[in-house]
Amino acid sequence: MSAPDQRPLGVAVLGCGSVGSQVVRLLAEQADDLAARVGAPVELRGVAVRRLEAAREVEVPADLLTTDATGLVARDDVDLVVEVIGGIEPARSLILGALESGASVVTANKALLAEDGPTLFEAAERAGRDLYYEAAVAGAIPILRPLRESLAGDRVTRVLGIVNGTTNFVLDKMDTSGAGFAEALEEAQALGYAEADPTADVEGFDAAAKAAILASLAFHSRVTASDVHREGISEVTAADVASAADMGAVVKLLAICELRRGPDGEEAVSVRVHPAMIPRSHPLASVREAYNAVFVESEAAGQLMFYGPGAGGAPTASAVLGDLVTVARNRLAATRGAGESAYADRPVLPMGETLTRYHVAIDVEDRAGVLASVALAFAEHGVSIQTVRQEGRGADAQLVVVSHRATDAQLRATVDHLSTMDTVREVTSVMRVEGESEQ
Amino acid sequence: MSAPDQRPLGVAVLGCGSVGSQVVRLLAEQADDLAARVGAPVELRGVAVRRLEAAREVEVPADLLTTDATGLVARDDVDLVVEVIGGIEPARSLILGALESGASVVTANKALLAEDGPTLFEAAERAGRDLYYEAAVAGAIPILRPLRESLAGDRVTRVLGIVNGTTNFVLDKMDTSGAGFAEALEEAQALGYAEADPTADVEGFDAAAKAAILASLAFHSRVTASDVHREGISEVTAADVASAADMGAVVKLLAICELRRGPDGEEAVSVRVHPAMIPRSHPLASVREAYNAVFVESEAAGQLMFYGPGAGGAPTASAVLGDLVTVARNRLAATRGAGESAYADRPVLPMGETLTRYHVAIDVEDRAGVLASVALAFAEHGVSIQTVRQEGRGADAQLVVVSHRATDAQLRATVDHLSTMDTVREVTSVMRVEGESEQ
Repeated sequence: MSAPDQRPLGVAVLGCGSVGSQVVRLLAEQADDLAARVGAPVELRGVAVRRLEAAREVEVPADLLTTDATGLVARDDVDLVVEVIGGIEPARSLILGALESGASVVTANKALLAEDGPTLFEAAERAGRDLYYEAAVAGAIPILRPLRESLAGDRVTRVLGIVNGTTNFVLDKMDTSGAGFAEALEEAQALGYAEADPTADVEGFDAAAKAAILASLAFHSRVTASDVHREGISEVTAADVASAADMGAVVKLLAICELRRGPDGEEAVSVRVHPAMIPRSHPLASVREAYNAVFVESEAAGQLMFYGPGAGGAPTASAVLGDLVTVARNRLAATRGAGESAYADRPVLPMGETLTRYHVAIDVEDRAGVLASVALAFAEHGVSIQTVRQEGRGADAQLVVVSHRATDAQLRATVDHLSTMDTVREVTSVMRVEGESEQ
Repeated sequence: MSAPDQRPLGVAVLGCGSVGSQVVRLLAEQADDLAARVGAPVELRGVAVRRLEAAREVEVPADLLTTDATGLVARDDVDLVVEVIGGIEPARSLILGALESGASVVTANKALLAEDGPTLFEAAERAGRDLYYEAAVAGAIPILRPLRESLAGDRVTRVLGIVNGTTNFVLDKMDTSGAGFAEALEEAQALGYAEADPTADVEGFDAAAKAAILASLAFHSRVTASDVHREGISEVTAADVASAADMGAVVKLLAICELRRGPDGEEAVSVRVHPAMIPRSHPLASVREAYNAVFVESEAAGQLMFYGPGAGGAPTASAVLGDLVTVARNRLAATRGAGESAYADRPVLPMGETLTRYHVAIDVEDRAGVLASVALAFAEHGVSIQTVRQEGRGADAQLVVVSHRATDAQLRATVDHLSTMDTVREVTSVMRVEGESEQ
């Protein structure tokens, strides 16, 4: 196989950690295939690292390593820049610099995109260059390209994603072993699935950034991380997980993006990250360990699911390389891919107005009339009850109520009300229920 | 939202059955969104039908209906042609005519692509136009675009697909209810999941066409339907399904595309369609009813799965419209998407040289030495045994053997040998075992 007769395209890689080093490896190992797919050889011009010493173990020719990232992206012979440093700065300045210098950019930087995507998209538009970021959401799983292109003639109504591997590992462990949150997290840390400081994962910050990106693409509107209602999993108890199991459900941390009518009847976007019970028959329920999956509902296509590894050096590098091939082909054809479209410009619905269902477990006094008083509390707030299960007797008496769909504000007010009632000893578990058909 | 200031693009739809009528509906209902995504209005110029009377129930303005498909695709104001007639002719001539007249083409025609894809790809190349066909494999599930673009920088090593809804419905019914093949098929027919003449689905012809398309894309080689080893599900018995359940497996009709070393050490493609037992823990095992899913293994990304409805008017139309938006955008940018790449040009491995594993159930005489004689037969053909289970006694004595990986020819020879042995009353079930890691 001979490389096509074309001027080579020059690539700069910013960052040489677990993803960057895999990108560099694949660029070398797949060079012939990449040339055939792109239509021109793709050549590595340089790899920017923070400290030269730190990169010694990576198999990069020493003369390609540099600490001058700003200089590297501005080079005339760099056509494509891969940004895998992460974080806000210096990543943002480097991406903006690369676009200004006429390079196309591939990035895996979810935090930056969720915080300041519009700035980057406008810079790409101005420069007439591509900015691709498949690797920013759910690692190797092709989800952005399908949302952006395959479903471009359809109307997406809902996206439910398991987009954080750490929390899925912890919740799966709690489900299969009965462990509590702290114990499961410790195991995840011991196995390398959770960081020493697990806050970004466990409190849902990572998932919220991905939810903002998914909602922006799915609904052609600008959604940033600060628009996302966020609850993590640190307060999920072994009792919550057992209670879910009793009703044939499993607890997952979901990134939920929905197209909804707001109170004024206008279409709006609901975007949130929180733990929720989903039925075990739902395709997302069988996503185990640290795997990710994104479930998409659209008007014409119906229900689709995309499943795979959500993190890791090689899988993320695979997504980066896929983008790199597209961007390189566009470059050769002197064109760009579809830019970001925010034409629908839908507002984000406040969490209180979001429709959802609650699963509420309540320790109650075991006396006549308790069930009636609890039912009345739901009714007073306009919340209809789907099922009530009464468990135990005497000191162990417990009511488990699953509501019909109502606004989060109504449900929240109901729970607050329950907590103040004489007949209620304690509201022991509150969790949303998702993944069922609308009713 | 105002339509962009661009000359409208003209669309012709060929065929107005369940898919065509949904394409026409979506073109009208989503007109504003489509214009925003494409960058120009997309206008329906005509719908070709075989008989005008047959199209009366479809909501198409009467003046857009025509029986002159050849004339329609040649019109100057037709930029994009959607072919959803199916079958070989007149679909092939119409697609070639459309490309020659300078139109880009979107088709859902798996049979034509699998039989004569290269002719179409060359015509598209010559005309400098796009030929897209996401809808040809697994309906609404975006699988071709991910294979072609998202994984373009990776190296796909295996594709396992449940790509025929009818057979998956029948096998799922057999698994959940214990029904035999005939009974499950009747139910599928009664529910509209199987045709009155179910041959194309049940005997694997439909899946084989899709396997050829998947293998071509995954391995950058030309694979046609005649290269695909094909076995259907009509001989799968309730006993086979029960035997699978005993070993924690489920029977699925799989389209399997693998990158293998041939006997000469060169890389080759193995492509086949046959029923196989897969472990219940495999993500494909939970694909129920008439759903489809495609499981992809690649070197860097690892294991990915794409799941959704594999057929139906609206889902297939969603895939067609997604292609239409891309093709229309390319048209406006005066460019084309990536053409077909057959640069790797790998040969197709004969079925006999394909590595697989067999599950064999044998009725045997209940006497000393039987197990040894059976084990010897496997050994003589160079097949290593993974597990043997002995069930029943006396007249009901049965051996269930699961082999390690060997060539299909070795395994086939072993089964032939077993059938001739004195101690063997009957080989009651033979089925391949797939979906496990290489060993």
